Amino acid sequence: MTVAATSPDNTSGLADIFDFKAYLAKAKATVEQALDQSLVPERPESLREAMRYSLLAGGKRLRPILCLAACELAGGDAAQAMPTAVALEMIHTMSLIHDDLPAMDDDDLRRGRPTNHKVYGEAVAILAGDALLTRAFEMVALRSPGVPPERLLKVVGELSLVAGAPGLVGGQVVDLESEGKEVDLETLEYIHLHKTGALLSACVITGAMIGGADDELIAALRVYARGIGLAFQIIDDILDITASSEVLGKTAGKDLIADKTTYPKLLGLEESRKRAADLVQEAKGVLKPWASKAQPLLALADYITSRDR
Amino acid sequence: MTVAATSPDNTSGLADIFDFKAYLAKAKATVEQALDQSLVPERPESLREAMRYSLLAGGKRLRPILCLAACELAGGDAAQAMPTAVALEMIHTMSLIHDDLPAMDDDDLRRGRPTNHKVYGEAVAILAGDALLTRAFEMVALRSPGVPPERLLKVVGELSLVAGAPGLVGGQVVDLESEGKEVDLETLEYIHLHKTGALLSACVITGAMIGGADDELIAALRVYARGIGLAFQIIDDILDITASSEVLGKTAGKDLIADKTTYPKLLGLEESRKRAADLVQEAKGVLKPWASKAQPLLALADYITSRDR
Repeated sequence: MTVAATSPDNTSGLADIFDFKAYLAKAKATVEQALDQSLVPERPESLREAMRYSLLAGGKRLRPILCLAACELAGGDAAQAMPTAVALEMIHTMSLIHDDLPAMDDDDLRRGRPTNHKVYGEAVAILAGDALLTRAFEMVALRSPGVPPERLLKVVGELSLVAGAPGLVGGQVVDLESEGKEVDLETLEYIHLHKTGALLSACVITGAMIGGADDELIAALRVYARGIGLAFQIIDDILDITASSEVLGKTAGKDLIADKTTYPKLLGLEESRKRAADLVQEAKGVLKPWASKAQPLLALADYITSRDR
Repeated sequence: MTVAATSPDNTSGLADIFDFKAYLAKAKATVEQALDQSLVPERPESLREAMRYSLLAGGKRLRPILCLAACELAGGDAAQAMPTAVALEMIHTMSLIHDDLPAMDDDDLRRGRPTNHKVYGEAVAILAGDALLTRAFEMVALRSPGVPPERLLKVVGELSLVAGAPGLVGGQVVDLESEGKEVDLETLEYIHLHKTGALLSACVITGAMIGGADDELIAALRVYARGIGLAFQIIDDILDITASSEVLGKTAGKDLIADKTTYPKLLGLEESRKRAADLVQEAKGVLKPWASKAQPLLALADYITSRDR
């Protein structure tokens, strides 16, 4: 499977040749199909329904697409990275379900629909999250045919770090503890790098691992991922202020209501926008040595920091 | 590292030679040490505290010990299985933390102490569970030096199944849905095989995988594990009726209060005891071909179905 459109080796005029819109549409369609097939019938059916409800709730599927793109950049076949791409979306979905719980952010709305616990109750929502988290590891370990075990084991290791205390969970705990408090930029970045950045980073790193990336590419992708991860979150903070609930598909102005520290609050709206743009430039710059092969990741960096992503 | 006491190849009079009590004490001590070392300092410290509170709350450590014993039976070094043994206890602990939550079984007491959410609040309890689950996979993937990656990947696969929808989570959902309802023996066994049996089975299977077991031994261990898993749960049901809260370290008579279907309720107390004994005999019988090497697992089968385990 190839997601990227064929592009010539010389790098002049690539903007005209690489059709990012078509790339994105094709990648999203293949990801949606793989997500749909990832949840087989189970007993009880109610558990599967709750898992499907949140996993198949739409969204841009940026995380799986980043994974597939990184795999191809590393010279691998995107199809081999698809189970891991699905696993990443499962971990992302699981963190949303748990974060939305009454005991945490207490959110009623997600992607324009009632949150998981609003539909299935708290118990099943917690368990659906647990099941998606473990299914993610199953996707990598048992449903990734043709990938060498050493690579898959590395992927498991990367996912175990970003989904747990050193990643998503640690970020969420610091976030909860910071609510209603004045936090400094260092703490704010800690929260974002762990809650959002770690998983985004894992997307490109695991994709690259499956594609057989060398250390040089892995190191570059970590810089790339850190940049787009922080930029992504800054944009999120900006959108919370400037967009309506309808556009966001979740409750707008929530950060303000919860008195959360955000980039616009610390740096102002314009400075926040500039910072996001600088981070994206840095992320793109580091991939220059890979030239035209990096086109999808370069375009994705712009895309996730655009106004209407 | 060897947990088992040396025993001669001939099988006569082994009961005198194999000192199970000493075996158990030694194994438990090494497991406690490994558990203690498994949770490094993290940020935030509160998350680590919550994880430690439940992981180091004592208990018989049967699951890790079963894992180490199976590794040695397969001819492996128990030390190589220790990270997986720790992972199994983490998964077990995580399931207890989540099951105890107000949205689920709403338990205040566990192992004689307040449950995790009673001490740290619901949000941190949910997240500590999530963190223990992901740390379990980290233990296997990143902290198991010297074990071939193919074996570790198989272990990850086994754990992903038993901890998720096809195991613990599925069992818990069916259990929750059955509360206050009349359930038949088939559903009762489904719940127990998934909530308790699956993880107990994974203990011996993953230990054997790390030890390099062949298919014949793996198949025998699956039968052994199914037997002791069900017997374990039947005894649990019996203890809930016959023992006090003080002995159990958790609220006694809870099944009766919750009007849960139990083995004693379906079969009577005496028939339940007989059934447990038969299951243990069957479990032990299947390990006969491995003679004296299976001694720890044979003794463990008796131990977990004894009155005062």
